[in-house]
Amino acid sequence: MAMKSFVEVDADSHFPLENLPFGVFKPSGEELPRPGVAIGNFVLDLSVITSAGHFNGQNLNNSDCFLQPSLNKFLAMGRPAWKEARSTVQKLLSADEPTLRDNASLREKAILPMNEVQMLLPTVIGDYTDFFSSLHHAKNCGTIFRGPENPIVPQWFHLPIAYHGRASSIVVSGTDIIRPRGQGHPAPNSPPYFGPSKKLDFELEMAAVVGPGNKLGESVDVNDAADHIFGLVLMNDWSARDIQAWEYVPLGPFLGKSFGTTISPWIVTLDALEPFACDAPKQEPHPLPYLSEKTSKNYDISLEVRIKPDGHKDSSVVTKSNFNHLYWTLTQQLAHHTINGCNLRPGDLLGTGTISGPEPESYGCLLELSWNGQKPVSLNGTTRKFLEDGDEVTITGFCKGNGFKVGFGACSGKVVPQL
Amino acid sequence: MAMKSFVEVDADSHFPLENLPFGVFKPSGEELPRPGVAIGNFVLDLSVITSAGHFNGQNLNNSDCFLQPSLNKFLAMGRPAWKEARSTVQKLLSADEPTLRDNASLREKAILPMNEVQMLLPTVIGDYTDFFSSLHHAKNCGTIFRGPENPIVPQWFHLPIAYHGRASSIVVSGTDIIRPRGQGHPAPNSPPYFGPSKKLDFELEMAAVVGPGNKLGESVDVNDAADHIFGLVLMNDWSARDIQAWEYVPLGPFLGKSFGTTISPWIVTLDALEPFACDAPKQEPHPLPYLSEKTSKNYDISLEVRIKPDGHKDSSVVTKSNFNHLYWTLTQQLAHHTINGCNLRPGDLLGTGTISGPEPESYGCLLELSWNGQKPVSLNGTTRKFLEDGDEVTITGFCKGNGFKVGFGACSGKVVPQL
Ligand SMILES: [Ca+2]
Ligand SMILES: [Ca+2]
Ligand SMILES: [Mg+2]
Ligand SMILES: [Mg+2]
Ligand code: NI
Repeated sequence: MAMKSFVEVDADSHFPLENLPFGVFKPSGEELPRPGVAIGNFVLDLSVITSAGHFNGQNLNNSDCFLQPSLNKFLAMGRPAWKEARSTVQKLLSADEPTLRDNASLREKAILPMNEVQMLLPTVIGDYTDFFSSLHHAKNCGTIFRGPENPIVPQWFHLPIAYHGRASSIVVSGTDIIRPRGQGHPAPNSPPYFGPSKKLDFELEMAAVVGPGNKLGESVDVNDAADHIFGLVLMNDWSARDIQAWEYVPLGPFLGKSFGTTISPWIVTLDALEPFACDAPKQEPHPLPYLSEKTSKNYDISLEVRIKPDGHKDSSVVTKSNFNHLYWTLTQQLAHHTINGCNLRPGDLLGTGTISGPEPESYGCLLELSWNGQKPVSLNGTTRKFLEDGDEVTITGFCKGNGFKVGFGACSGKVVPQL
Repeated sequence: MAMKSFVEVDADSHFPLENLPFGVFKPSGEELPRPGVAIGNFVLDLSVITSAGHFNGQNLNNSDCFLQPSLNKFLAMGRPAWKEARSTVQKLLSADEPTLRDNASLREKAILPMNEVQMLLPTVIGDYTDFFSSLHHAKNCGTIFRGPENPIVPQWFHLPIAYHGRASSIVVSGTDIIRPRGQGHPAPNSPPYFGPSKKLDFELEMAAVVGPGNKLGESVDVNDAADHIFGLVLMNDWSARDIQAWEYVPLGPFLGKSFGTTISPWIVTLDALEPFACDAPKQEPHPLPYLSEKTSKNYDISLEVRIKPDGHKDSSVVTKSNFNHLYWTLTQQLAHHTINGCNLRPGDLLGTGTISGPEPESYGCLLELSWNGQKPVSLNGTTRKFLEDGDEVTITGFCKGNGFKVGFGACSGKVVPQL
C-alpha cells in the first residue's frame, strides 16, 4: 500500500513519498540554483526548508548543505545525513503532518510545480568513470567488433573493466546533442574520411553518484562500498560508433564518447531502492577476495528506451531492459575503482556500462539492436540503423511497488546537426 | 645576453626574467593559496601586486584574477591578459624599474624566498587527457606488448591517439606516491594474482594547460589552437605496467594509471617558450585538413629523468630526451580533442604522452629502458628493472638561451609502500 502525502501524487507518478529523489533546480525567474526533492508533479525547495529551520536533526541542524548550488556538500556528509534528510522530508510531506500542510505561506514558498522550474546537473562532477558490466553487452560488442570466437576477453570475468570518461560534456536531460564530427574508416585499405558521424548511437546506462569518497592512497572495502553511493541516475552515453571503432586501439574510447553524456536530473537514493534489491548473478570464476562481498545486490529496475523521430507525434519503444542484468555490482565497481588508491570525490559519477539483457529486444544500444546496421530497427512506420538528426531519445526507468512506483523520471536528448 | 632583474638570479637558474612562470603557493604560516611568479630563488606574490594596484593595464585593471586560490580565472581571460600580466611583471622585476625595487615594504611583502613557501597545484583540473604523441614510444610499447610485426596501429598516423585520465589523483611535485595494489597476470594460463604492483614505472611527459577553452558543440581551429594553451608543465604519468597490461583491452588504461600523476608547480608560458620554437617533424601521410596547420611547431626543451634510491646520496640520470621528439604538435592535439565538439575548460590538462627519442638512452620510461624488465638499467652501483620503494624520481627540463635558461624546475615524487 502506498504512503500518503498531502501533496497529490498519481498512482503512476515516479515520485511518491516512497521515493523522494534529490536534484538541483532553478525556480523560474530566479538565478540561484538550489537543492530540491521531487514529490508528484512538484519540487520541494530544500533551501526554503533549511531557512525555516525544519532540518533540525543532529546531522543537518545548522548545516548549509542545502544552501549550495550543488549537492556535493550534502553528499560528502555521508549516509547518516542522507537518512536524516530523507526521514525529515518524508515526515514533512506526509498527509498527517501539519508543519508544512497547514502553513500556507511556507507551503507556497517551498512547494513549486515541477513544470515551472529548470532542472540542472545535480552535482559538480569531478570525474566520470564508465564501466562495462553487462555480460550480454560485452559479448555482443565483442562479437560485432572482433568476431564470435572469443568475444569476451578473459580479464572481463576477473575485474569490472572501465575507462575514464569526459566530465566536462555531461549534460542534464533535455539538452540537445550536436552530432559530432570526426574520422571514420569503413574499409581496411582506404584512407580515413572526415565528417559528421554516420553511426550515432545511444547507450542505455545508469550511473551511481559517489558520496563521501576516499583519500588518495586508501581503498574502500567492498562491504563498505554501499555507504559511498548516494544513489542512481539514468544515463545515456551517446556514442559515435564510426569514430570509436577507428580511434579506440590501444587506449580506449575518446572522441567517440566525449561529445556528450546525458543524465537524468533526479538522484534516486539507495535507501529508496532498497525494497527493490535482488540477488546479483552468480559469478564464476569466483572473484578475488577484494571483490568478494557478503551480499551481492542488484536492483529490479525496469528500463526502457524510446525514440521519437523529428515531426512524429509518437515515440516508439526500441528496447526494454532491467538493471538486474548487470554482472558486476555497483559495490564491486566502486571497490575495484579504489583498490589502487585512486581517490573518489563527492559527486563523481560511475556509469554501469550499457545494460543489455539476454534477448535481442533487451539490447541496450542500436549497435546491438541493429547488429551494426545489418538489421534495421522498426520505429512505427520507419526504421533506424543508427540515430538521425531530429531523433529524440528518452530513457525511463522505475521500480514497481505495491500500488506505487519508485521511478527515475526521464533522461532525454534530441540529436541536432552541427550548424 | 640575459635580461637583468634587481632580484639576484644565477646564470644557471630556471627562472630568470625571460621565463616568469605562473604557479600557486601558500606562504609559510598562511592559509590562503594565491598566484605567484617565480624569479630566481624567489616568488612574486601576485595578490600583493594586485592589491598595490600595479596591474593597471586594460585587461587586468580591477580584475580579481590574482586574488583567487587557483589560476583558472586568469586562464579563462585569454592571451591578451596573459601577455599584459607577463609584461607588467617583467617590467616590475627589471633592474631599472624603481616601483618595487625602491619600495622596501612592498618588496618585502611581495617577494618571498621560494624555500619558505609551499607550492600547490596551479589550477583546478576539470579534466585531464593523456595523448600518445611520440612515435618512438608508440613503436617501443607496441613492439613490447604486441610484437615487432605491426607495432603501431595504422590510425596512429592519422590522429593523435589519447585517453581520458583521472583528474582527482593529480598531485603537485613533492607528493609521495603510494605503490598501487591491483591484479596482474604474468602467465597466460594461470589465474590473476593480487598485490602491490611489481612493475611500477614513471613516464616522462609534459602537459599543456588549457586557457579559455570552448563551448560544448564547438571546435577550435588548429590554427587558433595556440591561443587556447597558456603554457606547459612537466608531468610524470606514474604507471603500473602489470595492472595496465591485464586491464587495458578493450577500453584502455584505468587503474594502471589512476593512482597518481605528478606535475611540476610552475607553468611556463608559451610566450616564454616562443624563442625556443622549432619545426615539428614532417608528417606522412599528410594529416586531414582539420589537423593541417600553417606552421607546425615544437619546442627545443631538454628533458632528463633521475632516480635516487632510498638512502643513496646521489641520483643517477636514467634518460635524456627532448620535447621536440613529439610527432603530433600541441595545437594538433587540442584541435583534435575539440573536433567532435568536446568542451575544454580553463585549467584542463593535456598530457603529451611519454616523450621518447630515437636512441635507447632517450627512452621515456623504464618499460622501454629495461625493455619490459629484460635489460636492467644501471643506477650508480645498483640496477632497476622497475621502481622500488624509496626511489625518488625527478624530471627536469629547460630551454638553453644565450646566457640564461628558461626552465621548468623539477617534477619529483618518491615511491612509498602501502601501509
Ligand atoms: Ca558506455
Ligand atoms: Ca602516459
Ligand atoms: Mg558519452
Ligand atoms: Mg598517472
Ligand atoms: Ni575528469
